[in-house]
Amino acid sequence: MTSPIVAESATLSGVAESATLSGVAESATLSGVIPPVCTPMTPDYQVDAASLTRLVDHLLVGGVDALFVLGSSSEVAYLTDAQRRVVLDTVVGHVAGQVPVLAGVIDMTTPRVLDHARVAVEAGVSGLVATAPFYTRTHPEEIRTHFRTIAARTGLPVYAYDLPVSVHIKLSADLLLELAAEGALAGVKDSSGDDGGLRQVIMRRESSFSVLTGSEVTVDSALWMGADGVVPGLGNVDPHGYVELYRHASRGDWQAARAEQERLVRLFEIVRVGGTRMGGSSSGLGAFKAALHLRGIIDCPITALPQIPLNDDEIGQVGKLMAGAGLL
Amino acid sequence: MTSPIVAESATLSGVAESATLSGVAESATLSGVIPPVCTPMTPDYQVDAASLTRLVDHLLVGGVDALFVLGSSSEVAYLTDAQRRVVLDTVVGHVAGQVPVLAGVIDMTTPRVLDHARVAVEAGVSGLVATAPFYTRTHPEEIRTHFRTIAARTGLPVYAYDLPVSVHIKLSADLLLELAAEGALAGVKDSSGDDGGLRQVIMRRESSFSVLTGSEVTVDSALWMGADGVVPGLGNVDPHGYVELYRHASRGDWQAARAEQERLVRLFEIVRVGGTRMGGSSSGLGAFKAALHLRGIIDCPITALPQIPLNDDEIGQVGKLMAGAGLL
Amino acid sequence: MTSPIVAESATLSGVAESATLSGVAESATLSGVIPPVCTPMTPDYQVDAASLTRLVDHLLVGGVDALFVLGSSSEVAYLTDAQRRVVLDTVVGHVAGQVPVLAGVIDMTTPRVLDHARVAVEAGVSGLVATAPFYTRTHPEEIRTHFRTIAARTGLPVYAYDLPVSVHIKLSADLLLELAAEGALAGVKDSSGDDGGLRQVIMRRESSFSVLTGSEVTVDSALWMGADGVVPGLGNVDPHGYVELYRHASRGDWQAARAEQERLVRLFEIVRVGGTRMGGSSSGLGAFKAALHLRGIIDCPITALPQIPLNDDEIGQVGKLMAGAGLL
Amino acid sequence: MTSPIVAESATLSGVAESATLSGVAESATLSGVIPPVCTPMTPDYQVDAASLTRLVDHLLVGGVDALFVLGSSSEVAYLTDAQRRVVLDTVVGHVAGQVPVLAGVIDMTTPRVLDHARVAVEAGVSGLVATAPFYTRTHPEEIRTHFRTIAARTGLPVYAYDLPVSVHIKLSADLLLELAAEGALAGVKDSSGDDGGLRQVIMRRESSFSVLTGSEVTVDSALWMGADGVVPGLGNVDPHGYVELYRHASRGDWQAARAEQERLVRLFEIVRVGGTRMGGSSSGLGAFKAALHLRGIIDCPITALPQIPLNDDEIGQVGKLMAGAGLL
Repeated sequence: MTSPIVAESATLSGVAESATLSGVAESATLSGVIPPVCTPMTPDYQVDAASLTRLVDHLLVGGVDALFVLGSSSEVAYLTDAQRRVVLDTVVGHVAGQVPVLAGVIDMTTPRVLDHARVAVEAGVSGLVATAPFYTRTHPEEIRTHFRTIAARTGLPVYAYDLPVSVHIKLSADLLLELAAEGALAGVKDSSGDDGGLRQVIMRRESSFSVLTGSEVTVDSALWMGADGVVPGLGNVDPHGYVELYRHASRGDWQAARAEQERLVRLFEIVRVGGTRMGGSSSGLGAFKAALHLRGIIDCPITALPQIPLNDDEIGQVGKLMAGAGLL
Repeated sequence: MTSPIVAESATLSGVAESATLSGVAESATLSGVIPPVCTPMTPDYQVDAASLTRLVDHLLVGGVDALFVLGSSSEVAYLTDAQRRVVLDTVVGHVAGQVPVLAGVIDMTTPRVLDHARVAVEAGVSGLVATAPFYTRTHPEEIRTHFRTIAARTGLPVYAYDLPVSVHIKLSADLLLELAAEGALAGVKDSSGDDGGLRQVIMRRESSFSVLTGSEVTVDSALWMGADGVVPGLGNVDPHGYVELYRHASRGDWQAARAEQERLVRLFEIVRVGGTRMGGSSSGLGAFKAALHLRGIIDCPITALPQIPLNDDEIGQVGKLMAGAGLL
Repeated sequence: MTSPIVAESATLSGVAESATLSGVAESATLSGVIPPVCTPMTPDYQVDAASLTRLVDHLLVGGVDALFVLGSSSEVAYLTDAQRRVVLDTVVGHVAGQVPVLAGVIDMTTPRVLDHARVAVEAGVSGLVATAPFYTRTHPEEIRTHFRTIAARTGLPVYAYDLPVSVHIKLSADLLLELAAEGALAGVKDSSGDDGGLRQVIMRRESSFSVLTGSEVTVDSALWMGADGVVPGLGNVDPHGYVELYRHASRGDWQAARAEQERLVRLFEIVRVGGTRMGGSSSGLGAFKAALHLRGIIDCPITALPQIPLNDDEIGQVGKLMAGAGLL
Repeated sequence: MTSPIVAESATLSGVAESATLSGVAESATLSGVIPPVCTPMTPDYQVDAASLTRLVDHLLVGGVDALFVLGSSSEVAYLTDAQRRVVLDTVVGHVAGQVPVLAGVIDMTTPRVLDHARVAVEAGVSGLVATAPFYTRTHPEEIRTHFRTIAARTGLPVYAYDLPVSVHIKLSADLLLELAAEGALAGVKDSSGDDGGLRQVIMRRESSFSVLTGSEVTVDSALWMGADGVVPGLGNVDPHGYVELYRHASRGDWQAARAEQERLVRLFEIVRVGGTRMGGSSSGLGAFKAALHLRGIIDCPITALPQIPLNDDEIGQVGKLMAGAGLL
């Protein structure tokens, strides 16, 4: 079958005028809606494979174009290596080639990332997503070596994960495009929130370099600028919403795309119900899992240690926001 | 045998007037010189166990009080789990109880840290050193849960590693002292550079809470304030210098301590020879290894990927600074 | 007369479906293109009133809706109080009511801002633009007091200037909207680059609260989200371009808006020709002034001390980028 | 021999012989205790000259070596230009040459700093204290131009004020020493909290470059390292304490110096009674003024807008800490 993540200009009439998307039959740019899959857990903090399988089905039924496991929304920073492997095997096995599965290989430096990459390759993923080194104090030339080495050693498409809130470095357009030109990077997942920078990459890239926004709330505008797809954590909760948004944009019905986006912006308020009594990661991930639990998709909304869980009142607020968005 | 890292007031005449160090026969505060051991590598980036063993001997002959493996100076951020295990087994095996061996358990969150802790406990280490969570956006209450969980699950003394340059959080005196009072923390390795904060902890702590400075260049003053010991990366290169400094301070000969410290400050300039053409981590770790190679202790000065290595000119500058400090 | 900056829904067919812009006949929201006017200087660093007057004419002929003097693009941080006064008097006098003139009142805290505000009010400006306090370590409640006091003491519309790169604080949507509800803020100039946050403000505000993007490169998308206007430093160089962009958007011709925006994105590369051999402020402000000089609008491209000026090669690159954008 | 930390302590009965301040011997470095004078205000936020005069007397009676007006502890960031002038005239007039008076010239960039410097020179101050540019994004070469210009235009000794918490830049040892070698800087007030960096400057400087710590809590250790003096905000509250500390150190009685320092560390807890319900500036400055009011030195403890004032309970805690330090 033709991969649903390969953007064919014929199907993208809405953005067909964007030169960056035209005539790329063979270039196979990753595109569409690619949710970063949450990792449901049992009450004793083990990966809940049954719930994870249901979540995958929920996303596939929602019409997503690919899956991204072991991203930040998966609590990858909290998962042990054994748990990461369970996630990989469960999802790749269950998807069975219906859509591409990308895997995050999140760790501090090249050698540790390569270890994760080996496991992911063995599991049969379609591409890898890596951040710049963190914890260490790094130089741009070292970041280049990092991505080059991962690409050279794995043979899979490598996507740079630009996440300054975690990595404390912003990947520059120049660095990304240089690595793209060399073939070391197949694309970028931009979770920097800097849509001016995103646009610079979009306008200067070759068409085969995939630009994906990690934003939940500026997807219509990122697609408008020429982004290829979106990797929204909120897409776990409402995959259908993001798929609709993307389809509206692809058809050129931007008014409908905006209306859908605005509904999702309101829904995204769920990540703030935890307020300041917990870390930002806990608040966001806890809300996604609470929502999935309320929808009946996962058995338990627990998040990994040391995250503070949402309390009943906060889960109630999540429910109200979901009802307001038509989800409950 | 009596552990040399147990501060007994009788043996520390120089700081005996510090109330925080007196009369603590049973409290066993970790103290003295505890170098964070570098990890020598072969030209193909494997742990060079023979060189590592020689380095350990070099440190023991230098008179150090304990060893800290898998700290930042070990390139722990770059070592794979298999390499970390080789380091633990090599050092714990070779030391054979002559001095305590502490192990860094450096990873993003509690579950991943616990995995490292299990390996370290099996290897037979005497204590664990952990940072606050990083990569994730964390709340102080979550940091407390993190340290409490590590202490509860391992049964070993846990030392907090305060390293804002890597973790992007400063551990407050209140947080450290609260965890100390609970018994969740046995001490702190303070690499924040904030000696005002260090002093606050020293003045407010109970005597059993060990305060160790991670600075190479304010050791005399930290001991003067009442710190129990020092964990200097530069101690790999010149363990004898730090041991002398500590002995001078213990005897109350502060003038001699300062003179020794000032010699070491000048030697510490080696970490700057890499300048701005590489990351700060590469420059510092590369200099330590170049110096150990020049001293004939390790076979190869190579640092892990993706670090940029020092070039011949820079290694030459390291050599000159070592000669100036009387080491070559 | 009807102020050209009052958005009337009838004239904004392109965004008429946005509820936030409809039916606001009396609310007089500031909107359109409002360039932050550069401050031309003589070779001895005095305000060049003749060049400034020509620049104002250039902007008015370009069709802008209002002017913003003493913003960051004016080098306000470098102008003495006497120079700020010359700028105010020159521009307000020359404009003579043709369009509203807003004035930046940029200083560290409330009392100093109030001093600037008094001068601006005397000069006859239409509104004030103020940042949160900087240099001091401030609390959100103190930021609220700051804006409330400025509004209460001046009687003019106050616009919050959200500029984390200078102020090192991000103004939250909650804070802005609370002050808007009280009547203490008439709008925001958002130069944070965080278009997700911008959208949150747009969607949650009352219609009388003016949301202006300070971005040069995401103007079409900000208008698409419902922003009322744009305050682009690059608008000094090419006011007609931004006016066209805004008109296309107002007519609902988003394809044309995007094409114009993309031309301006390419032109905006001029701010990077200074590279890393000078500060980011110098590079950007130097480029704007070089371009204005190349266009024959200002006599001298000099920037205030201690900024490093662009060299001939860099000015040549500015010229090429201008030619590429059809400006030379 | 005399104490190693004071070059010829016998000749430093104040700093009157300091060449940089009186043009006598060319080696005389500014040294001793130089409190950054608070600015008492009336209930309607005007400078309370009578209280300010009493505060100056309190400091002179306490034995300080010089005064620093319009530093951060003066609320300089909150004072209007007119208020700054009142402070300068009041203090310089009242001191009448008994000790040197340094003046802060705190503003964003060179031209604005020069305006403040002109006023200070006219008022008759002995030296100027300037930060690097802030609010703007600056390059090290621009920082050099900044300090060079201030020195060249004023003819007074210029001290660099290293205050990263406000300026968001750390002045490197290389930059400071290069400017010292040129004669552009006479010294540094280091409020960075980085005592390793402080030591580097001390060890590498020429003797005529004055190194002053801005810390309240590591004064004994800074003097031990060779610092020339201290500029403690807490010195407003307890000038005698810092003078005693300095004298003990000058005599080489380090045990007594440490005991005095530790008493002052406990007193310094007053800056934390405001907790997290106000900004850090408000909490610290409010505590200093509350303490001065409790001691009967100033009439009103009010701080400038928009700072949140301490409440009665917090002022009570200040009182208890003062009592504990023997001040009430």
